[in-house]
Amino acid sequence: MNDVALGEKKFAIGVDYGTNSVRALIVDLADGTEVATSVVNYPTGDMGIILDHNQPTLARQSPRDYVDCFCQAVREAVEQARDAKSGPSGVFTPELVAGIGVDSTGSTPLPVDIDGIPLAFQEKYSDVPAANAWLWKDHTSIEEADAITKRVYELGNGYLERCGGVYSSEWYWAKIWHCQRENPEVFDAAYSWVELADFIPAYITGNTKPEKLLRGVCGAGHKAMWESRHGGLPSAEFLASLDERLVPLRERFNNEAKTADQVAGFLTEEIAQKTGLAAGTPVAVGAFDCHMGAVGAGVSAGSLVKIMGTSTCDVTTLPLDAPLQTIPGVCGVVPGSVLPDCYGIEAGQSAVGDIFRWFERSLAPERYTKTGKTLVELEKDAALLSPGESGLLALDWNNGNRCILVDTALTGAIIGSTLSTTAAETYRALVESTAYGARAIVERLEEYGVAINEVVVCGGIAEKSPMTMQIYADVLNRPLKIARSAQTCALGASLFGAVAGGAFRSIYDAQRNSVGYKDLVYRPNSAAAAAVYEKLFRNYMKLHNSFGVKGTSIELYPVMKELIAIRDSVRESRR
Amino acid sequence: MNDVALGEKKFAIGVDYGTNSVRALIVDLADGTEVATSVVNYPTGDMGIILDHNQPTLARQSPRDYVDCFCQAVREAVEQARDAKSGPSGVFTPELVAGIGVDSTGSTPLPVDIDGIPLAFQEKYSDVPAANAWLWKDHTSIEEADAITKRVYELGNGYLERCGGVYSSEWYWAKIWHCQRENPEVFDAAYSWVELADFIPAYITGNTKPEKLLRGVCGAGHKAMWESRHGGLPSAEFLASLDERLVPLRERFNNEAKTADQVAGFLTEEIAQKTGLAAGTPVAVGAFDCHMGAVGAGVSAGSLVKIMGTSTCDVTTLPLDAPLQTIPGVCGVVPGSVLPDCYGIEAGQSAVGDIFRWFERSLAPERYTKTGKTLVELEKDAALLSPGESGLLALDWNNGNRCILVDTALTGAIIGSTLSTTAAETYRALVESTAYGARAIVERLEEYGVAINEVVVCGGIAEKSPMTMQIYADVLNRPLKIARSAQTCALGASLFGAVAGGAFRSIYDAQRNSVGYKDLVYRPNSAAAAAVYEKLFRNYMKLHNSFGVKGTSIELYPVMKELIAIRDSVRESRR
Repeated sequence: MNDVALGEKKFAIGVDYGTNSVRALIVDLADGTEVATSVVNYPTGDMGIILDHNQPTLARQSPRDYVDCFCQAVREAVEQARDAKSGPSGVFTPELVAGIGVDSTGSTPLPVDIDGIPLAFQEKYSDVPAANAWLWKDHTSIEEADAITKRVYELGNGYLERCGGVYSSEWYWAKIWHCQRENPEVFDAAYSWVELADFIPAYITGNTKPEKLLRGVCGAGHKAMWESRHGGLPSAEFLASLDERLVPLRERFNNEAKTADQVAGFLTEEIAQKTGLAAGTPVAVGAFDCHMGAVGAGVSAGSLVKIMGTSTCDVTTLPLDAPLQTIPGVCGVVPGSVLPDCYGIEAGQSAVGDIFRWFERSLAPERYTKTGKTLVELEKDAALLSPGESGLLALDWNNGNRCILVDTALTGAIIGSTLSTTAAETYRALVESTAYGARAIVERLEEYGVAINEVVVCGGIAEKSPMTMQIYADVLNRPLKIARSAQTCALGASLFGAVAGGAFRSIYDAQRNSVGYKDLVYRPNSAAAAAVYEKLFRNYMKLHNSFGVKGTSIELYPVMKELIAIRDSVRESRR
Repeated sequence: MNDVALGEKKFAIGVDYGTNSVRALIVDLADGTEVATSVVNYPTGDMGIILDHNQPTLARQSPRDYVDCFCQAVREAVEQARDAKSGPSGVFTPELVAGIGVDSTGSTPLPVDIDGIPLAFQEKYSDVPAANAWLWKDHTSIEEADAITKRVYELGNGYLERCGGVYSSEWYWAKIWHCQRENPEVFDAAYSWVELADFIPAYITGNTKPEKLLRGVCGAGHKAMWESRHGGLPSAEFLASLDERLVPLRERFNNEAKTADQVAGFLTEEIAQKTGLAAGTPVAVGAFDCHMGAVGAGVSAGSLVKIMGTSTCDVTTLPLDAPLQTIPGVCGVVPGSVLPDCYGIEAGQSAVGDIFRWFERSLAPERYTKTGKTLVELEKDAALLSPGESGLLALDWNNGNRCILVDTALTGAIIGSTLSTTAAETYRALVESTAYGARAIVERLEEYGVAINEVVVCGGIAEKSPMTMQIYADVLNRPLKIARSAQTCALGASLFGAVAGGAFRSIYDAQRNSVGYKDLVYRPNSAAAAAVYEKLFRNYMKLHNSFGVKGTSIELYPVMKELIAIRDSVRESRR
């Protein structure tokens, strides 16, 4: 079975930092069997997120949570693996771990001191939101992001050609610059800012010095405008044109960004003790969750992996020698960010599962919430509805629009409600809206020459919600495969750990050995469903372009009329 | 106190047919004291309404309910009045009742046989929706209404000049014509169609013969295109141009439409026995609920009465000698429909309380529903919010738009939701949306020369929801008075009964004697609130015109941006 695993090292560990929790996974490298997994919720804030009612766009996290939860999750997984019935490689022991890989949300930068230690570890800063980690979905930096985009176009330096043409308020420089304006004391106290995906490998290997710690090409390329053809980070002149105080940060950032199959360092004695692992275990350079998740789901050129969770990441790859255009509104195209010798192409939606959970929390009536399994109960009723039957059409922008509009200052909308509109209909309309958002991305990629021959879905929603998968198959009008692993991000991370630790010659070998799909494939239900969704999607795009594209005036009078006509014709056909 | 009541007759009875129930009110004519009241819910269907899931626009009612509930409600009120502590006029006895007035929803026509008896009284038709009453909010007749409007303009006959320029699917001829198409058997079996407001006075006085029963000018003028300057009903040629089968109905309709201060007949022995009243009690010609309600709230030229319930009626009057323009999108301008020698001007919103109840039923979470007083609990939280704080903006079109768009094929919308949007914020946005709808009507009236010097609100919402009243005061930017009576429709009806029975010389005398206001006046809260609502209303009108006015293309990109800017500035100021 395993003809590529090298030597004695038979296991690898992947650690995946999600929005609300961290997950540790131990993989048997013989065939990818997942022998132990542990999930620990971040204890701080509201489900792990520090919020501010008066600034609804603010979302921060505690770096202390990151470190504590790493130790707890890995320790629990190690204990579990020790007790587990042996897999193909026999009994687990810490000494058999080839390596550790880490992935995280991003851009989630945190301010650190001159030693690379988070400012939030200091008592005086621990409760200051600006001194904590700026979670990917923090959208306080809209003004700064807009100013960066504007400046890039003024200077014509091409810095955004590979970032979809628009710098996002979710990203590194916008957040740092906003901190300077919002809380100059924290900004001045910060010696450097480190992506969470880079911070963890640095911290657990003791290599935290900002100038030296290895920065992943994934984080640097997608969020910090690092690009090899421009000499790495944006120039000092450019940063100075934004704010002179940003310039020193450039010199405190190792400009040799690395792919995730490289070694970041070796586990420290302290972390080894706290986790039950062996000191000296190799740790791979970090990357963002969806990029490693795509690898864990078997991404390759021509296949689009959708990692669906609170938000969605869409990842595909393109050989480095393929002709490449700037793809407007697609977050990033970075050589080596997913697979070492391909362009990694990343798109995504700012909220998917988050919208479903918002509905659950805010608007689901008791008959759905009383069992504690709200979304399951809602889905029972919503799945009985036919496409178009509700007459509803929603915009999936409760957390802004990442792709293809790259605009966090957008909001959700629901059109088409009547006096008999139900909660289940509304819930289904929200699910459908996220599918339309997914389709807008696929259409944009294809429009710019990135063929999508196959769609692979992974993440919690793919496992839990057959209705959502069927809606996606119908709306995308393509069959959907489901990744075999329920934890592709952690799986992908573990494979990079294995490669960094020398268990495989390359990430391709690791993928071939350990990645697969479920037997269940979702296919478009019928031509009728696809036809209805085609009409609804065209109306979605009218709303999308009306509310989301500056300078656009579209006649919207037909939208409600068409929704009613579709609804009535679907109901008529069900009579 | 009472210098105008004549003779020995000291009481009057008003019977008010609402959407879900009928109310009987006994009034002491000495000063308008309400001595007894009884409300009976219609037993048939869903809260009194026959629905069809596959035709969400269908809404029918049982004529049997109308008759049975009349008897029960009046009987209970009579019993209550007999037992009551004596009012200014002393002990109540049935012999002291000057007259009975009846008002109802409309246009709510029902098919009757050659004797004027409802088809639904026949066993074979009782369960056939088309053979029951077509409730005002039945919107199945959109195609027919559009065709009527089109034909009027083709012929240039001016039939719609006084009806806001558009014939509605809620109205008499559209419903009858749709019945011909939907259920020709019922259409053929129907000898005539009678408005509920005319049917009840006819039925309880035994004057049901279709050719002879008195039709109120209110129902005829507002819904059946009856207009004295055109010789009454639409011409046979016009009806034939729609469908020849409509022509005979014209001859079975007493073309002498009457004002509600006229006598329709005298109570039959049978109904007297069933209600405990005296046979021979005078019964006034019927009219629509909001018209009589406006009288019960003290309407006069320059004052706008808003009767807020499931839907809203806005009524004002203008002297017959005032210059009068066609007011686009205002439902009706009919001489004598409210006060005998004024134009009655009627506008309205298709759903107000119905939208609040829809939210309660469909989307309110358990923490609001668990006490059984959902709207009260929601209002507690929603009232704490400042104007603009939620960032939400809704369209109040869950049941279409009666005024000023006259389009039932429109639907509700909510724009601006984020991941932290709450149920209370959403509820408040719905309340605000109805206030914007109200303002659109006031602006339209003033634009066409109908001055609104004073606004009087009555109906259940005015009594129960201080938050709603304050929002209306802020959005309309005018002080709001509340009618003293909590049941102005029934009060107005009773006064018409009194006038018809000779207890007052005119309805003006009856009004002066019996109508008043509460001490509490809602005034705009602050210039700041009015300014925020001014901005929100301008954005509401952008959505209103984009989705509601054919051929309109408006740039909507600024809408979400402004909602966010308003929200952030309100939250900033609350910090």
